[in-house]
Amino acid sequence: MTLTNEMLEAHPGPPHLDRDLLVRCIDECLACLQSCTACADACLAEDDVAEMRACITRCRNCADVCAATARMLSRQTEYVAATARAQVAACRELCANCAEECERHASHHEHCRLCAEQCRRCEAACSALMDAIPD
Amino acid sequence: MTLTNEMLEAHPGPPHLDRDLLVRCIDECLACLQSCTACADACLAEDDVAEMRACITRCRNCADVCAATARMLSRQTEYVAATARAQVAACRELCANCAEECERHASHHEHCRLCAEQCRRCEAACSALMDAIPD
Amino acid sequence: MTLTNEMLEAHPGPPHLDRDLLVRCIDECLACLQSCTACADACLAEDDVAEMRACITRCRNCADVCAATARMLSRQTEYVAATARAQVAACRELCANCAEECERHASHHEHCRLCAEQCRRCEAACSALMDAIPD
Amino acid sequence: MTLTNEMLEAHPGPPHLDRDLLVRCIDECLACLQSCTACADACLAEDDVAEMRACITRCRNCADVCAATARMLSRQTEYVAATARAQVAACRELCANCAEECERHASHHEHCRLCAEQCRRCEAACSALMDAIPD
Repeated sequence: MTLTNEMLEAHPGPPHLDRDLLVRCIDECLACLQSCTACADACLAEDDVAEMRACITRCRNCADVCAATARMLSRQTEYVAATARAQVAACRELCANCAEECERHASHHEHCRLCAEQCRRCEAACSALMDAIPD
Repeated sequence: MTLTNEMLEAHPGPPHLDRDLLVRCIDECLACLQSCTACADACLAEDDVAEMRACITRCRNCADVCAATARMLSRQTEYVAATARAQVAACRELCANCAEECERHASHHEHCRLCAEQCRRCEAACSALMDAIPD
Repeated sequence: MTLTNEMLEAHPGPPHLDRDLLVRCIDECLACLQSCTACADACLAEDDVAEMRACITRCRNCADVCAATARMLSRQTEYVAATARAQVAACRELCANCAEECERHASHHEHCRLCAEQCRRCEAACSALMDAIPD
Repeated sequence: MTLTNEMLEAHPGPPHLDRDLLVRCIDECLACLQSCTACADACLAEDDVAEMRACITRCRNCADVCAATARMLSRQTEYVAATARAQVAACRELCANCAEECERHASHHEHCRLCAEQCRRCEAACSALMDAIPD
């Protein structure tokens, strides 16, 4: 059991969402925050930095949105479904958009290949959680 | 002219969005990040903290999402309309949701009254910017 | 009176630090978060992006640290002097370091000139607040 | 090998710091960002919330500073030792301060026990990295 799981389980209130899907989404957001921050930084150091502008901006935006989503999903007290849905939807969009650009560079930049995979995992975790948020 | 306006204008590329609406949205998000962080903290110090739980969580979530939105909107290089739209939509939802709860406490907590007003200003700025983002 | 000032004044507890210095430091950190995010983004769009790598990284780091500092200083409940001092000291260091690099490009990039000025204002606000935090 | 390790290794430039210590510090900061966010939220839901105010504030501050530190350490391009040292020092101070308070509640709140342990791990990782940053 990961620490995220243990932390959510230790909350005194009843769970609002499927715990496994919630934990997975938080952990993928945290991993994506790191991979996107590191990928933007590695792109900046490449000789072809001028070709990497779109990748850098998408990675930075994705990192910011994943960070906010991880923090928000870590809060269970007085949970509100509508706001969770809106932010997870945005996060899924950002991850898909970043993955798409990273994939274009996956064959020549290993950091883009790794980051694209992480963005796709986070996108999938957001989708799965979205499906579990009741209307 | 605010510093945010000057900074965006100094970008070497062409503008993608109406500058006034963009600057307004960034500045309202930054002000909302501060007011929500301070309101959650002030609620925590109140004698009736147990009644303020919903307000505290909504303020914290709103602060996180406003922070991500302000950062994302500050980037104009290789701008992508679809991701801007998704994140500004989420931000508007979080601001409206937080304002609604702060307004319930506005008559007995001045910080809630001030924060509710700021959340409504940020919600309006998000709405105005949304309308300006082309499909 | 700025909103930050009103928000801090609405807190039910007694102030721990000089209010004017605290408000000034929070507001300069928020402005610096924006200017550094925008400067990193504008540098990325410049033709001489390969020469701007140091400026981009310093701006990004400064933005992250200013964001954390603004949030932390916005909390007055159960304030702890030692942690405030440590984080404001780090923030001052990051601002000075970023200003130094931005100043090197101030003559040919207006965003660097503006951002350098903002970093110096934030550095000064951190210094002034540091002097007011009792040992 | 963790993804953080793979991402840092994929950077085109030479490493500036011991990779194992750097990866460990980033990963502990990310875990601490989550545990502190979740602990502040769980404390808020407890019946004795009024006794948990110090714990909540310290957790929130620690989460913000760990987030900034994780992001900053994930950047290797044009690394500057002085700023890394200042921010890691602040992060260590915040983690130690938060652990101290969480430990006071470890016997009656499982989330505080878990979070205290995570804060101590992050404090240790910051200390180890500090020792490896050359003057």
